[in-house]
Amino acid sequence: MSTTTHHETTIAAHPELPTIEIVREFDAPPAAVFRAHVEPELVKRWLGPRGLEMEVVTWDARTGGEYRYVHRDQQGEYRFYGSFHEIRPAERIVQTFTWEGYPDGVSLETLTLEDLGDGRTRLRGVSVFESTEARDMAVSSGMDTGVIEGYERLDDLLAEQPAK
Amino acid sequence: MSTTTHHETTIAAHPELPTIEIVREFDAPPAAVFRAHVEPELVKRWLGPRGLEMEVVTWDARTGGEYRYVHRDQQGEYRFYGSFHEIRPAERIVQTFTWEGYPDGVSLETLTLEDLGDGRTRLRGVSVFESTEARDMAVSSGMDTGVIEGYERLDDLLAEQPAK
Repeated sequence: MSTTTHHETTIAAHPELPTIEIVREFDAPPAAVFRAHVEPELVKRWLGPRGLEMEVVTWDARTGGEYRYVHRDQQGEYRFYGSFHEIRPAERIVQTFTWEGYPDGVSLETLTLEDLGDGRTRLRGVSVFESTEARDMAVSSGMDTGVIEGYERLDDLLAEQPAK
Repeated sequence: MSTTTHHETTIAAHPELPTIEIVREFDAPPAAVFRAHVEPELVKRWLGPRGLEMEVVTWDARTGGEYRYVHRDQQGEYRFYGSFHEIRPAERIVQTFTWEGYPDGVSLETLTLEDLGDGRTRLRGVSVFESTEARDMAVSSGMDTGVIEGYERLDDLLAEQPAK
C-alpha cells in the first residue's frame, strides 16, 4: 500500500463559468478506473475522504439509473443522491448530484476517461452549477479534501486489483 | 379552443452564465401544470412544436426515474432522453436532457411552478449547459419555436382538463 504512487489532483474553479474542473491521472487502464466508479462494492471503498464510512443505498450505474448513499463520521451523516444520465463504458459517466443538506442545489457532473497508454488513465471531471454562488459554495464546502483523499484511496484500490 | 388565452413566453440567454431562462404563465393551478408534465399521456399532447408526432418510449417521472421519447415529422425523427433528478409534486422538476443527434451535449433543467393564486401559475425553467457554445447551439436550434408552440398547446390542454 505505502508504495502506491499518488499523482497530483488539480481542482480548478473556472474564472467565467459556474464550473469546477478536476484532472487526475491514475496508474491503471480506463476499464479499471471505470469499474471502480460503477460497481458499488468498489465505490464504497474509495469515494470521499478518509475516516468516513459509506453506505450505498442504491447504485444503479446504467444510463437512466440512479444512486443514493450516506457518508457517516463522528459528527453525523451526510446524504447524497442523483441520477446517472449516461454511462459509456470505460469512457464517460454523466450524473447529477445533490447533497440533501442543501436540497435545492444540483450539479451536473461529466467524467471522461482518456487512455494514456501503458496502463495509465487521465480522468477529467467537470461539474456545472446553476450559478457561480452555488459553485463557490461547493468549493468552500471542503470538497477538495474529499476529492484528493478519495483519489488516493482509489490509487490503493487500483493497485491491489490485479491480485484479485 | 380558439378562445384560450396564450400568455407571452420569455426565453432569455444569460449574458454571463451558460444558461437559458424561460418564463411563462398559465391560467391553471400548479397541480394541473405539474400533472401535464409527469403523465405521459398528457405530455405527448403538448411537448414540442405543432406538426410533430411524439412517441413516448419511457416516462418514469419520479425522483431517480428516466425518460426517452421520439419526435417525428416529414423530415425524419429526433430522439431525446434524460433522467428525472428530482420530482417535487406541483412545485419543482429537475431533469437532464440530451438530443441524440448531439450525444455529448447535456443540459440540466430546473422547472419551478409558482402559485399566483386565482388558478394561475408562473412556470420558470432554467437550463444550464457545460459551456456558452453548447448553450448558443441550443438557442440557435430553433428551440424557441418548440417551446412557444408547445406552451400554446399546453394552454389548450389545460383549458379542456376541467371538462374531463
